[in-house]
Amino acid sequence: MIVVMQYTATEDNIKKVIERLESEGFSTHLSQGVSRTIIGAIGDRTLIPGLAIEAMAGVEKVVPILHPYKLVSREFQEENSTIQLDKLVIGGKDIHVIAGPCAVESREQIIETAQAVKAAGATMLRGGAFKPRTSPYSFQGLQEEGLRLLAEAREETCLPVVTECMDVESLSIVSEFADIVQVGARNMQNFNLLKKLGTIEKPVILKRGMSSTIEEWLLAAEYIMASGNPRIILCERGIRTFENYTRNTLDLSAVPAAKNLSHLPVIVDPSHGTGRWQLVAPMSRAAVAAGADGLLIEVHLNPSEALSDGPQSLTLENFTSLIGELAVIAPVLNRQLAAACRD
Amino acid sequence: MIVVMQYTATEDNIKKVIERLESEGFSTHLSQGVSRTIIGAIGDRTLIPGLAIEAMAGVEKVVPILHPYKLVSREFQEENSTIQLDKLVIGGKDIHVIAGPCAVESREQIIETAQAVKAAGATMLRGGAFKPRTSPYSFQGLQEEGLRLLAEAREETCLPVVTECMDVESLSIVSEFADIVQVGARNMQNFNLLKKLGTIEKPVILKRGMSSTIEEWLLAAEYIMASGNPRIILCERGIRTFENYTRNTLDLSAVPAAKNLSHLPVIVDPSHGTGRWQLVAPMSRAAVAAGADGLLIEVHLNPSEALSDGPQSLTLENFTSLIGELAVIAPVLNRQLAAACRD
Amino acid sequence: MIVVMQYTATEDNIKKVIERLESEGFSTHLSQGVSRTIIGAIGDRTLIPGLAIEAMAGVEKVVPILHPYKLVSREFQEENSTIQLDKLVIGGKDIHVIAGPCAVESREQIIETAQAVKAAGATMLRGGAFKPRTSPYSFQGLQEEGLRLLAEAREETCLPVVTECMDVESLSIVSEFADIVQVGARNMQNFNLLKKLGTIEKPVILKRGMSSTIEEWLLAAEYIMASGNPRIILCERGIRTFENYTRNTLDLSAVPAAKNLSHLPVIVDPSHGTGRWQLVAPMSRAAVAAGADGLLIEVHLNPSEALSDGPQSLTLENFTSLIGELAVIAPVLNRQLAAACRD
Amino acid sequence: MIVVMQYTATEDNIKKVIERLESEGFSTHLSQGVSRTIIGAIGDRTLIPGLAIEAMAGVEKVVPILHPYKLVSREFQEENSTIQLDKLVIGGKDIHVIAGPCAVESREQIIETAQAVKAAGATMLRGGAFKPRTSPYSFQGLQEEGLRLLAEAREETCLPVVTECMDVESLSIVSEFADIVQVGARNMQNFNLLKKLGTIEKPVILKRGMSSTIEEWLLAAEYIMASGNPRIILCERGIRTFENYTRNTLDLSAVPAAKNLSHLPVIVDPSHGTGRWQLVAPMSRAAVAAGADGLLIEVHLNPSEALSDGPQSLTLENFTSLIGELAVIAPVLNRQLAAACRD
Repeated sequence: MIVVMQYTATEDNIKKVIERLESEGFSTHLSQGVSRTIIGAIGDRTLIPGLAIEAMAGVEKVVPILHPYKLVSREFQEENSTIQLDKLVIGGKDIHVIAGPCAVESREQIIETAQAVKAAGATMLRGGAFKPRTSPYSFQGLQEEGLRLLAEAREETCLPVVTECMDVESLSIVSEFADIVQVGARNMQNFNLLKKLGTIEKPVILKRGMSSTIEEWLLAAEYIMASGNPRIILCERGIRTFENYTRNTLDLSAVPAAKNLSHLPVIVDPSHGTGRWQLVAPMSRAAVAAGADGLLIEVHLNPSEALSDGPQSLTLENFTSLIGELAVIAPVLNRQLAAACRD
Repeated sequence: MIVVMQYTATEDNIKKVIERLESEGFSTHLSQGVSRTIIGAIGDRTLIPGLAIEAMAGVEKVVPILHPYKLVSREFQEENSTIQLDKLVIGGKDIHVIAGPCAVESREQIIETAQAVKAAGATMLRGGAFKPRTSPYSFQGLQEEGLRLLAEAREETCLPVVTECMDVESLSIVSEFADIVQVGARNMQNFNLLKKLGTIEKPVILKRGMSSTIEEWLLAAEYIMASGNPRIILCERGIRTFENYTRNTLDLSAVPAAKNLSHLPVIVDPSHGTGRWQLVAPMSRAAVAAGADGLLIEVHLNPSEALSDGPQSLTLENFTSLIGELAVIAPVLNRQLAAACRD
Repeated sequence: MIVVMQYTATEDNIKKVIERLESEGFSTHLSQGVSRTIIGAIGDRTLIPGLAIEAMAGVEKVVPILHPYKLVSREFQEENSTIQLDKLVIGGKDIHVIAGPCAVESREQIIETAQAVKAAGATMLRGGAFKPRTSPYSFQGLQEEGLRLLAEAREETCLPVVTECMDVESLSIVSEFADIVQVGARNMQNFNLLKKLGTIEKPVILKRGMSSTIEEWLLAAEYIMASGNPRIILCERGIRTFENYTRNTLDLSAVPAAKNLSHLPVIVDPSHGTGRWQLVAPMSRAAVAAGADGLLIEVHLNPSEALSDGPQSLTLENFTSLIGELAVIAPVLNRQLAAACRD
Repeated sequence: MIVVMQYTATEDNIKKVIERLESEGFSTHLSQGVSRTIIGAIGDRTLIPGLAIEAMAGVEKVVPILHPYKLVSREFQEENSTIQLDKLVIGGKDIHVIAGPCAVESREQIIETAQAVKAAGATMLRGGAFKPRTSPYSFQGLQEEGLRLLAEAREETCLPVVTECMDVESLSIVSEFADIVQVGARNMQNFNLLKKLGTIEKPVILKRGMSSTIEEWLLAAEYIMASGNPRIILCERGIRTFENYTRNTLDLSAVPAAKNLSHLPVIVDPSHGTGRWQLVAPMSRAAVAAGADGLLIEVHLNPSEALSDGPQSLTLENFTSLIGELAVIAPVLNRQLAAACRD
């Protein structure tokens, strides 16, 4: 950490900062330039957010040198993390396409969709049972019944099931039924939920918050890992910007960026990332070309009848054609589309 | 709702949209211009998010006409809501200053601070017991012990206590000790928490999410109100933008905007809104001048020793001087600073 | 255009809005619902921005139905525009890679770079002669001398030259030397420059402003086209968001979005879009996979000696390897990398 | 400047960075910690943007210590700059209200408006002759005729005239007629225009770009001042964010922030900052309460007939009532509303 003093800082200001740092166990180094005095401090990075050095008299700013996260950093572990789920491996050579409807609507819908996306090339099934909705008047999901239907669809197809957990209360039931537990963008900084996710045996898909920096996203992953669960998959799903033609702005540069900074796998959700089905195929291809380890795609057998997110759902036909394109792009990065489980 | 068809839409596309709308109970009106066909639809606004009209063939866009919220809207209730708390009234002629430390750190700290801010003119005490922190390595608050210390401070000063609830699990204990329960920016769309807040007897301060539009903020309030609790105070606390000199960009225009759209009281948190104590006094004055019903200000008796948010905390001296300035601005808007409770 | 009246609007308010619209040549249609009165207006879309209907008593909002641009819209011309430049065609089956240094620094540098990028597969040469720089103390470019050196490099390699014009004053000299004139992000709404660009014989690359919506970008293109020059290439180069790990957030969804809305070719600048060379190759691959018609890439033979933008410049080695990857992705979209000119 | 090396940096990487810095005239200081090596460098700050240290092998990031601007900084000049214009002083104790229509529309309009706003308390007249418009089909201003009408209005009222200059070409004619030349948000980084503004004898109002940081805004002012003109007034006019209820998000915290960092006066434009006349009065009061040195307000005698920006223009009645409120707030900051010139 570097502490930059104001040009008006007094000797006494400087002395007090040094004393404070040393009392917290930091070793310090003073560098007095013509226009600024700078204090370098070396010590436990996890203490830094708790100090309030910026609030001390004469301090202009504090510049951290190390990343504030540790366990999830590429520095801590150089090789890529891979996450095993039965015979599937996420984060290795295989690219996974996770597909399914925004929300589970009925037994027939989820089972037919599961069979169809599997046939088209998906390796996992997504489907929302608990739905976070902006309006209290929108469909809130089938809840526990939705979880049971997902499990039935898994029975029928052998596809592992990805579904969202919205809070600590429902975590035990969700993680009982799900193969991978998803944390939605609005919950990326639900810190109690993150801590609890550290205690479960299932992998976690951690969506980036819609106004979260990459650093905050990695800190959220650090919460889970520090609590005991290292099986984390990051998911870019679009950030909020001034552009309103798209629902969000899908930040694909976050894929190579997060992979530079961290050893965790990174997947992309182009459905929420764009909010328009016409943009889902181009952005899916782009995600794979940018190095994503997988995709999370909303597919609906009849989008205009969907109870939620119809406008951003692919038809089966469009989904199938997309899979064909991805299969050609993957080898450019020395990757391949994963093969689905066999019953 | 207005449905705008693509210029390439066929007669059949148009017919299907109309059928869909009518089957959902909307009455429709067709208007065929030279370059576009437009379908007007009148019916239950709360059904609209559940339709996926945009996903139907030939549809260009759907334009809602009514606001998606209802109970919290100025249209539903023309006069300002006022919230009574013992003898205090929020949202009326009185302006309230809620002050205290970011986090409760010790008995001595919270009681001394409570006495000091009361003497300076605050009418309520704020203090965090459960703290949402970006890093897992930061101080997470004294938790239940913090709540007890807040209650002690109330005993000593008669100041009502405002403190944050981070999840459904701790809501019963928080609402047992707090006089007003605060929902943090990161929880503005924690929908299960919002629903539960609708069932408690205490008023709720609902902070605006850092990337939430005013419309989404009012929809979050609608969740609480639709669940049974009408005693809601909106709190602007800064939104996330590209500017990084400040921690957030305090959107003061949201104060008159929210008051135009809704009957609920609106207060402002200039401490989180700016992240720099030097900007807290100017922005507090500005908030009152813009029509805010109150302020939520971090005050620390020794900011550079604070366990969190020191850099944005006012000293008691600066806080006292600010109160004097606010007392002169309030009458410009035909308001006055509220008087504190008497023991 | 749809005019939504406030729920409190009087009959007289409504009457005046209708009179105003009809006096401007619009035909109107009144629709009185239970909670809102709506006035539909059909007429010349180019008049709408000049009306101030929102300022009239009783008006809640005005909703435009048609896009505000016309000549550049897909609706006006259904098939893709292609731009011919000697034997090169932009916007057709060929994908073009335009490469070169941020700034022209010396004869040797620009000629060597031109030869190298041509050998690697670039079909055009980029290089800045007039440089917009945030700080007055930064290198401002070789100016006219830079243009002459670019022309020499073209002589040596036959590569057409792309360079930026910063203002109306230098347009005649820039368009004398350049084969394609580039408009920088900061000038996207320099309306006088846009009008003048409508009068030149050279194609124009129009970069998206860093806080411009896709609609504003297309309106800027409309300025050029309405002034007489239809040879416009749109260029996505990143927008400004809260994320600060990257210099900008490259909005790749703008590629398929702009191509849906407009018939113009769209290229991508991943160098400015990310500001980090490590992200340039992944985002270049992604851009092609998303459907871009070309790329604008900064290549420097020795990035750490570059007078500007070194951190985002590719080395020749990385550039060469990228071209190989792009050649495999292009056929997925039924495209191919363009072949360079022959001397 | 601090150079942070990657944890994988080699001794040779470090050596080369030091050599590069020293060859550019910097003196360096090496600090080798356990996890990172850090190189401090002291020298001419204006050289830093020209170095490409981040592009050197083994470099993680470069952290500037000093602000990149100099002449405009509070550090360079501790006391506030004041700008004299005849008998008016901007940046001193007086607060100035600059009012008038968005665009000059006719002789009658501008003269009547000038007389009315003067009577209400304005000390200067604003009015656009050259208008930057997003659409090529919108009213582009009366141009030179508009300047002459502004001069006539000044004759009639003695009010100094503020009007926008859109490019280098029209600068001589604009600065002939205007008393203060305004630079619009879209031109904040029109660097050639900034340099030319450094050579005129008139004060300049420099609006903040809609996606410009405070640092970039001050660098734009530095361009003007380094070119010879120290009479610069900063103007906050709203930044672009995700919120779309308002036209822009007026960043009032930029007022005290810019005044902390710089000695220049800062005024606020609440009309463009909000885009809604209902928000103009609250945000004007807030701006003065936050410490602004003046306001730039659109007033139209008949907003619904305005050729541009009607929805954000105040009526004379609302403007007059606002002035009364400002007169009460100003003394809280030990300021007063300026008195207008006398004929």
